[in-house]
Amino acid sequence: MTSFVEWDFLTEFVEKAFMAYGIPEADAKICADVLLQSDKKGIESHGVNRFKPIYIDRIKDGIQNPVTEFEIVRETPTTAVVDGHDGMGQVIAHRSMQMAIDKAKKYGMGMVAVRNSTHFGIAGYYTDMAADAGCIGMAGTNARPSIAPTFSVQNKLGTNPLTVSFPTDEAFPFSLDCATSIIQRGKIELYEREGKDTPAGTVIAHDGSVMTDSPTILKALQSGEAALAPLGGIGEDLSGYKGYGYATIVEVLSSALQQGNFLSMLSGIGESGEKIKFHLGHFFIAIDTEAFMGLESFKKTTGDIMRELRAAEKAPGAERIYTAGEKEYLIWQKRQKTGLPVSEPVQKELIAIRDDAGLTDYRFPFEQ
Amino acid sequence: MTSFVEWDFLTEFVEKAFMAYGIPEADAKICADVLLQSDKKGIESHGVNRFKPIYIDRIKDGIQNPVTEFEIVRETPTTAVVDGHDGMGQVIAHRSMQMAIDKAKKYGMGMVAVRNSTHFGIAGYYTDMAADAGCIGMAGTNARPSIAPTFSVQNKLGTNPLTVSFPTDEAFPFSLDCATSIIQRGKIELYEREGKDTPAGTVIAHDGSVMTDSPTILKALQSGEAALAPLGGIGEDLSGYKGYGYATIVEVLSSALQQGNFLSMLSGIGESGEKIKFHLGHFFIAIDTEAFMGLESFKKTTGDIMRELRAAEKAPGAERIYTAGEKEYLIWQKRQKTGLPVSEPVQKELIAIRDDAGLTDYRFPFEQ
Repeated sequence: MTSFVEWDFLTEFVEKAFMAYGIPEADAKICADVLLQSDKKGIESHGVNRFKPIYIDRIKDGIQNPVTEFEIVRETPTTAVVDGHDGMGQVIAHRSMQMAIDKAKKYGMGMVAVRNSTHFGIAGYYTDMAADAGCIGMAGTNARPSIAPTFSVQNKLGTNPLTVSFPTDEAFPFSLDCATSIIQRGKIELYEREGKDTPAGTVIAHDGSVMTDSPTILKALQSGEAALAPLGGIGEDLSGYKGYGYATIVEVLSSALQQGNFLSMLSGIGESGEKIKFHLGHFFIAIDTEAFMGLESFKKTTGDIMRELRAAEKAPGAERIYTAGEKEYLIWQKRQKTGLPVSEPVQKELIAIRDDAGLTDYRFPFEQ
Repeated sequence: MTSFVEWDFLTEFVEKAFMAYGIPEADAKICADVLLQSDKKGIESHGVNRFKPIYIDRIKDGIQNPVTEFEIVRETPTTAVVDGHDGMGQVIAHRSMQMAIDKAKKYGMGMVAVRNSTHFGIAGYYTDMAADAGCIGMAGTNARPSIAPTFSVQNKLGTNPLTVSFPTDEAFPFSLDCATSIIQRGKIELYEREGKDTPAGTVIAHDGSVMTDSPTILKALQSGEAALAPLGGIGEDLSGYKGYGYATIVEVLSSALQQGNFLSMLSGIGESGEKIKFHLGHFFIAIDTEAFMGLESFKKTTGDIMRELRAAEKAPGAERIYTAGEKEYLIWQKRQKTGLPVSEPVQKELIAIRDDAGLTDYRFPFEQ
């Protein structure tokens, strides 16, 4: 049965658990904040359900370093290249976006390109940092090969999010945080966890057939026997080449500026089938609205656009029109009162982490 | 019958024709180059077929000024806000991207936000300028309301291209120049001209029904009785909210930084049904690869990514995998020898412009 866990308790537990695996306290706070921000926004695909498989397991497997060495390889007033030395992706990303924001505040624009990093959680966390600072925020990352190019069946590109946030005069920023595939791996992991099928047309089987069984898809994505369709779908009929193009843009921005790895280099699997470091690349851009016509005017126009979009005439049967970031804000409005709903498989993982880390003081509500 | 026209002849004619309608010679050369670049790349939807309806007619209707007043409203080392005073969009855009490139060359990054502009042709022209200069180029523009938000049937957003070019070590740059709808208005105009239907699923009728008749769609888009679906399609099943989100990003970047017009303000139709100025907004970003790990290394990595993508395993029945900008390059390889194939309706328009402009010295091959 799903159980609700209070945010303060969960935050402290996740911080302590990260620390138990060797992450310094200040870094653990960042990692916990990024992880739980995802759950607060309702993006379960990137929340505590990934705590064990994506972070703890990788630290234990030795393919990710708990202590982050953040090396600035090159720097100009507006730009920087950072080497993350396979530390914690959230820590590397947080510091890189902060650098981009600081540069933007001083020079109007800032961009940081990162190499040798690891999974940084939701890209929207970092673009929202920029929006909170009065800047336009853009970010992206490459990832394990998942998307097939148009007219191919081979997974080559990561799900490569192309993410943008804007400050607005509303209670929440505009925040579009999405993969350039129709659907991303984290969503399929969630379907698997919930025992659900993956929608048809979103995955390309190697022989051209339709795949919908979620566990089979995840295995096939890993082995290269299936690939995700880019946004716009399979082939060119509904402009799948556009999603393929945007995925490619993110791949280039995440590797070419930083002399980093790309495409099949990011499989995470070595020649003998062993787990190896991913060496991911990211990019972070901040643009200060004050370098144009000012923050207040930017927020007002952006807010006006959001309000006009939401007030558009509804399709027959539609209840409501949303703007990007709104659904996530509405979920948080609910969840801040209820705490986080934790499913049974994740409950088991949290207990396993607690026991493995020796955090015997923590007892979850679902254990009572 | 389709007739082929030599590039030198066509270029000179288009320049002289623009000049005949009051555009200064240097500006006319830019306008002609942008217009024909589209035809050279095979993007007929934005080439000479738009010479009369989008440029000449609008100048004659008094909703676009042939002489461009380029006012810099605000400027910092990396950024600028420009007011185009409803001059020629190509001239405004060309000068704005050049400013962004110059800023990037000096400070690493540059961005110019434009208001009160007019149709600037293909966005890829300007991002390719950046790539030719060794920079990453990004550009976009808002436009007449065409795309309906997800769960709406009302055209609110323009077809809002989100366009990016990268320099590569190949014979042509990476260049993704596409609307954030599945299909754009220019393509439907081309279908109409060729007597073809528009593919199902790309247009949302007001009552939710399917529309495919191209002339009916164009009228319905104008009257608000139909709207284009965002990339990803109608509803959320195949992630249409992502295309809707990207269209919104372009709308904001084209208006909020420059205190410009947006959404329904851009209809081009006044209260009494008269034609009024569009007051479009654009944005141009240049990022100098030399401010990171250098141009040569950037070109090499980007080229390697393109080659690996093209070498991916092909889908059953597929002949070839392309990267963005490749098809356009291949078309130009052919057309530079053959000249431009001009269809009969466009032939008639060119003759009408010639006669109207009094350019009696020019005789087209299809008149012989």
